[in-house]
Amino acid sequence: MKSKTELINFNEGIALESGDRLASFDLMVETYGELNESKTNAILLCHAFSGNHHAAGENKNKEIGWWDQLVGPNKAIDTNKNFVVCCNNIGGCAGSTGPTTINPITKKAYGSNFPIVSVNDWVNSQKMLMDKLNIPYWHFVAGGSLGGMQALQWSIAYPDKIKKAGIFAAAAKSSTQNIAMNEVARESIRKDKNFHNGDYLEHNVMPKNGIKTARMLGHITYLSEKHMDLRFGRKFQDDASKVDKKVNFEVENYLQYKGEKFSELFDANSYIIMTKAMDGYDASGKKDSLDESLKNIKAELLIVGFYSDWLYPPERGKEIQIAAINNNIKSSYVVLDGEHGHDSFLFYKEQYSKIIEKFIQS
Amino acid sequence: MKSKTELINFNEGIALESGDRLASFDLMVETYGELNESKTNAILLCHAFSGNHHAAGENKNKEIGWWDQLVGPNKAIDTNKNFVVCCNNIGGCAGSTGPTTINPITKKAYGSNFPIVSVNDWVNSQKMLMDKLNIPYWHFVAGGSLGGMQALQWSIAYPDKIKKAGIFAAAAKSSTQNIAMNEVARESIRKDKNFHNGDYLEHNVMPKNGIKTARMLGHITYLSEKHMDLRFGRKFQDDASKVDKKVNFEVENYLQYKGEKFSELFDANSYIIMTKAMDGYDASGKKDSLDESLKNIKAELLIVGFYSDWLYPPERGKEIQIAAINNNIKSSYVVLDGEHGHDSFLFYKEQYSKIIEKFIQS
Repeated sequence: MKSKTELINFNEGIALESGDRLASFDLMVETYGELNESKTNAILLCHAFSGNHHAAGENKNKEIGWWDQLVGPNKAIDTNKNFVVCCNNIGGCAGSTGPTTINPITKKAYGSNFPIVSVNDWVNSQKMLMDKLNIPYWHFVAGGSLGGMQALQWSIAYPDKIKKAGIFAAAAKSSTQNIAMNEVARESIRKDKNFHNGDYLEHNVMPKNGIKTARMLGHITYLSEKHMDLRFGRKFQDDASKVDKKVNFEVENYLQYKGEKFSELFDANSYIIMTKAMDGYDASGKKDSLDESLKNIKAELLIVGFYSDWLYPPERGKEIQIAAINNNIKSSYVVLDGEHGHDSFLFYKEQYSKIIEKFIQS
Repeated sequence: MKSKTELINFNEGIALESGDRLASFDLMVETYGELNESKTNAILLCHAFSGNHHAAGENKNKEIGWWDQLVGPNKAIDTNKNFVVCCNNIGGCAGSTGPTTINPITKKAYGSNFPIVSVNDWVNSQKMLMDKLNIPYWHFVAGGSLGGMQALQWSIAYPDKIKKAGIFAAAAKSSTQNIAMNEVARESIRKDKNFHNGDYLEHNVMPKNGIKTARMLGHITYLSEKHMDLRFGRKFQDDASKVDKKVNFEVENYLQYKGEKFSELFDANSYIIMTKAMDGYDASGKKDSLDESLKNIKAELLIVGFYSDWLYPPERGKEIQIAAINNNIKSSYVVLDGEHGHDSFLFYKEQYSKIIEKFIQS
């Protein structure tokens, strides 16, 4: 698979939804396959909350891309046939301009001064990327979770620049409970003694404990209750393999392990920025009507929900489907089994993969 | 209503399930009404995780008891007819021996040295209290959530000392997800910079931030998703009434406020001890069979679940009911509406109140 990773600068900057402005910004971009001559085969993948530009294949650190099960040669999103693009979003921590980036004005990391970004801002920056890559339109924009929100927003914001949208395990807006969970996660980060109001880099420390707690909570929301029960039940962790002696049950050990690992990799301000963007997104827009917001959509939609997903349960997908039907938008909505709760969108299953493949080709 | 609050000492001590022993302990006890001559009207109320001995009426601090909507003169649990007893559990922080108590051996607060306690230990200590009060048996033992677990355990452990058990919004054991949530709460407490491995009193500090985060998470699990949605939706908090300027949505403000308030009242070690007891309880016992565990029960059971409860959903009550039926135990299982999620067991509703009243009288 032909693959390329590069940092692309946009020195024209970007005006953000909040009213703030980034005078200049970079996007870390990964591409797979090649743009055909007629430029009709471009696909944009939008990453979820903790994802990044590395969607497929193995990078130089031997890390497998987050959607490698579905993206690659002869896979559902076929890199032999399509030019597939994925970028790390602004505000993230995987190379694109974010809170760990040096602010050209202050010469220090942005830290707490990094502006609030939104799903709209990401879509706008991806539009700038599209133009820079000389892509006239996306044949398909897809993502799961927060990535699905971007796919939906693409079809709303740039109706002439997108033919098809794949909205997986996503919602037109976060629920009250989603927001509540994210606020608990943010609270744990903000109250970490090393957080220093977001300027921890200046103090040469990282609020790892807060990120760890946040991620532990996140993992509970990503797994279905049933999956968790089948996998761990009430099994006790054997003493020899306890990551912490205070742990009794296997599920506690798992969360401790996962949380600890993540806390070494992810930036605390990015955690806050990304969850705020997720909470803040509302496809209904200022008119507070999803029917109204969707009325200019020209793209065909594929909406997939998963029964085991309790973060964005199938009802959320159905809301989008109903608004699509009300607007005569060509739209398919399907709820699949998926054993991985919310994370089901990441995993290959024959049915899921085939649906995506057929939708792209249709 | 005749009411009495007193600290009762048990200088004989208690052997705990963990193998540890408290050489002596106190229970903070509140009683309502009077024991009749035939001693047939005693009722024990078991409190949930953050509850205490103050179940009904108004105490000297003007605080209303946690079950006041159902306990009092002419209420479902009628203190005109019954002698109602409630005690703060060992390991709590409302007067009974717990981690903030001075350890008579070290002359310092127990802190991190307070032993692990279990639902069985609580039931055993309540049995000692029963004997001390010269009560021959309980006509009714009832509680919600962790209190319901104690009511169930009473009927298993002392079949001849309990006539009826009320098991509300409870389970025979916590689910994997319940344990996972509690572990996140504990993690946030343990990693508070003021926790000092549980010996924060020696440092004259309180790990308030950790307790706050834990309680915020708790509140999400106590409210139903629907209730949360109806109550807060995606409404923004107006600037003037924000408890923290980082808050955007009303639900965030609510959690911040509730968490902060609770963190001033509750002890961190008690939080850990109580949740560990909840996680550890398994009515199936060592034989891992609920049918087997329930076979000696003589009490009649009233099991109530609430549709909106996602902490201990109705299915958990059904498991107890099925095991009861398999053992020919007289048992009634009902699932009620309840608008308050898990907390529904605390609130008066005509149907709920009437069922309890009739069950006691039957």
